[in-house]
Amino acid sequence: MFLSSYALYHNCPMTWQLRQKARVFLAGTLWGSLFGVVITLSLQEQYAIAYQKPSEIPSKEGNSDLLERKCKQVGYPSLDNIRVTSSYVSAFSPFLRTSLWVMEYVSHDNEASSPVGTRSKSSFYKDPDIIDTFRASNTDYRDGAELGLSRGHLAPAQMHTQTQKEMDETFNLSLNIVPQLMSTNGCDWFRLEKMVKNLSKKYNETWIVTGPAFIPNEYGNESENQKQKVWKTEFTLIGEKRVAVPTHLFKVVLGKQASLGSKYHCAAFLLPNSPIPDELPMTKYQIDVEELEGLTGLRFFPELRYTDAQRNSIEKGHPLALSTFQSPVKWKDMCKESVCEGGYASFSKMYRHLSKMQSAKSIVELDELWSEAQALGYATRLKKDYETLKDAMLETSQDMQS
Amino acid sequence: MFLSSYALYHNCPMTWQLRQKARVFLAGTLWGSLFGVVITLSLQEQYAIAYQKPSEIPSKEGNSDLLERKCKQVGYPSLDNIRVTSSYVSAFSPFLRTSLWVMEYVSHDNEASSPVGTRSKSSFYKDPDIIDTFRASNTDYRDGAELGLSRGHLAPAQMHTQTQKEMDETFNLSLNIVPQLMSTNGCDWFRLEKMVKNLSKKYNETWIVTGPAFIPNEYGNESENQKQKVWKTEFTLIGEKRVAVPTHLFKVVLGKQASLGSKYHCAAFLLPNSPIPDELPMTKYQIDVEELEGLTGLRFFPELRYTDAQRNSIEKGHPLALSTFQSPVKWKDMCKESVCEGGYASFSKMYRHLSKMQSAKSIVELDELWSEAQALGYATRLKKDYETLKDAMLETSQDMQS
Repeated sequence: MFLSSYALYHNCPMTWQLRQKARVFLAGTLWGSLFGVVITLSLQEQYAIAYQKPSEIPSKEGNSDLLERKCKQVGYPSLDNIRVTSSYVSAFSPFLRTSLWVMEYVSHDNEASSPVGTRSKSSFYKDPDIIDTFRASNTDYRDGAELGLSRGHLAPAQMHTQTQKEMDETFNLSLNIVPQLMSTNGCDWFRLEKMVKNLSKKYNETWIVTGPAFIPNEYGNESENQKQKVWKTEFTLIGEKRVAVPTHLFKVVLGKQASLGSKYHCAAFLLPNSPIPDELPMTKYQIDVEELEGLTGLRFFPELRYTDAQRNSIEKGHPLALSTFQSPVKWKDMCKESVCEGGYASFSKMYRHLSKMQSAKSIVELDELWSEAQALGYATRLKKDYETLKDAMLETSQDMQS
Repeated sequence: MFLSSYALYHNCPMTWQLRQKARVFLAGTLWGSLFGVVITLSLQEQYAIAYQKPSEIPSKEGNSDLLERKCKQVGYPSLDNIRVTSSYVSAFSPFLRTSLWVMEYVSHDNEASSPVGTRSKSSFYKDPDIIDTFRASNTDYRDGAELGLSRGHLAPAQMHTQTQKEMDETFNLSLNIVPQLMSTNGCDWFRLEKMVKNLSKKYNETWIVTGPAFIPNEYGNESENQKQKVWKTEFTLIGEKRVAVPTHLFKVVLGKQASLGSKYHCAAFLLPNSPIPDELPMTKYQIDVEELEGLTGLRFFPELRYTDAQRNSIEKGHPLALSTFQSPVKWKDMCKESVCEGGYASFSKMYRHLSKMQSAKSIVELDELWSEAQALGYATRLKKDYETLKDAMLETSQDMQS
């Protein structure tokens, strides 16, 4: 450019000054344009950072930013009414008045040296941000107590002891609690929680999804001629707000370990929300993840199961591209790689005994079990349960006689 | 760039000609910078259009862009698995294997002069984009036929006659169909659809939300001593894929009219998915919108019910800010402003008669109604229903004897 200007300056005698000016102006324009583009782009980069999506702005509430990022990395099981607390991510269902699922992320790198959260300082509370129509309260659960139901944690309190705030949040009645049979809550569900806590120590990173399930029963297949398959889903609702009592509860665990070449291990468990009188190995409750998906309508860790083509179609705005989801699952059976077993707590034996009482088929059997309970020293705690069970049995036998 | 040009101009010992050149170059740089900024911004605008969020890209598929915009204007009842077709917006539920709701928008301004869609050219089809686990097929509904269930449209085919494509889309088995009792589908539900079509002609704009409901029954209140309230939700599932059969179906209509100062009128209806032997005024099925919300877990037309503070808290990333949703509803009861009544179709009388047969309490009563049906000329169509009903009754009476 400069060279040609120089040539022009020497070779054009007539209007050389005018030509010269035009050339220099053009050169300036070109340099200026480049400058304009660069300055605009660099200013816009600053602008873009200030206006990024809210979900990407780092949260000020402890670990909730890390939690959200890590959970999104493997994918949420559903997308409506998502709430991120310090302890867990929850998908609230206004229909059930409980969560559809709760997701936890555990990495022992981030643990405080001395946990401070204690259960005695926490209490169950109504969610302040849910409209009254859909909001469960302690009163609803009090009604459930007469059916042997307790306030069952989805994300266990004992997994969130880092701060008192984290533990407190596990007592949110809408986001983390479901009506759960006391005998299951205190016994086999507790075993499962203990097992998952042990498993989480074996992996660099662990994701846990827990939630209620509403499993149908097949019916009408007694007559041989009946060809069609018909199922019935049936569940109880408690309290003024009609909180749904799940027929089952599930837990899906995903572990990732650097020493395994960052491979994933996975296992899903489904426990009934009804009395479990016998102790069984935890693997008896293991269920195929895909089968659990069919039963719950949820999709577990979808991000790990996309292919590039699928992700591309999602980015193009295709809602879920579910039909092309059939990619090979990239995880191994956790219970074949690690030991899936959780020990009893000392109080668990009492809840096992309660399960046996709840499963009693006659008043005679119930009374025998009650004598045993007294001998074992459970009399004080189980007296009310015994009386409620006996009253219900007496009522049923009267109904059958009348 | 500016600085160096400026320095060059003032500080360097230069000839007049060189100074002149520098001055012209500086002017060129200024113009060029401006040009650079303008060209960058205008190019980026084009770029931005190509890369904006998928939902904001104008759709090429007929009215779906208008539909989406108009439905978002009043708000979706839930946010997971949203699908926008040419005819309706749908929220697919993988748990139910049907939609949670379907939303239509009607404005007679946009109607073609001569509708071309005809029902005979459409057929029920499996959704190609839903994973097989959650996808209903015609086989599932064939199983349901033995229970008197038909493939009930949520968005009625007759409301989407503008193009054949629009009508076809109402036959999507996952997004727009639920198992509905034939006698209700052909009779009172048809009346409701006819009524809503009439209502939509009275307003400039109409929004219609239709969906399945699963209403619990109160139980255990027979004994006077029982204080707690306990409900039970019970529903059937049909076919290999276990498609949920709703206990009820609902429809919510919202009308806006410029002549009313752009005020909204609204009405909600809840019809049982069980035989309705008697003709009742349509208003007998009217239900308070808030009550329907409690029963379905959905929130109808939430955008009309936000205050500025609420919208602000939503924009700040707070998921739904439900607690502060309690703003006064801005609509009037549609059925007090317009006539809520829909006429029978000629075939409706036959379905009313089927309802009576389905409600028969004894074989004698059923046989009497069957004689009537024959006299009325319904023999060919209702023979199979009569036989199925009688078989079921005979089986039940045998069970009771054994």
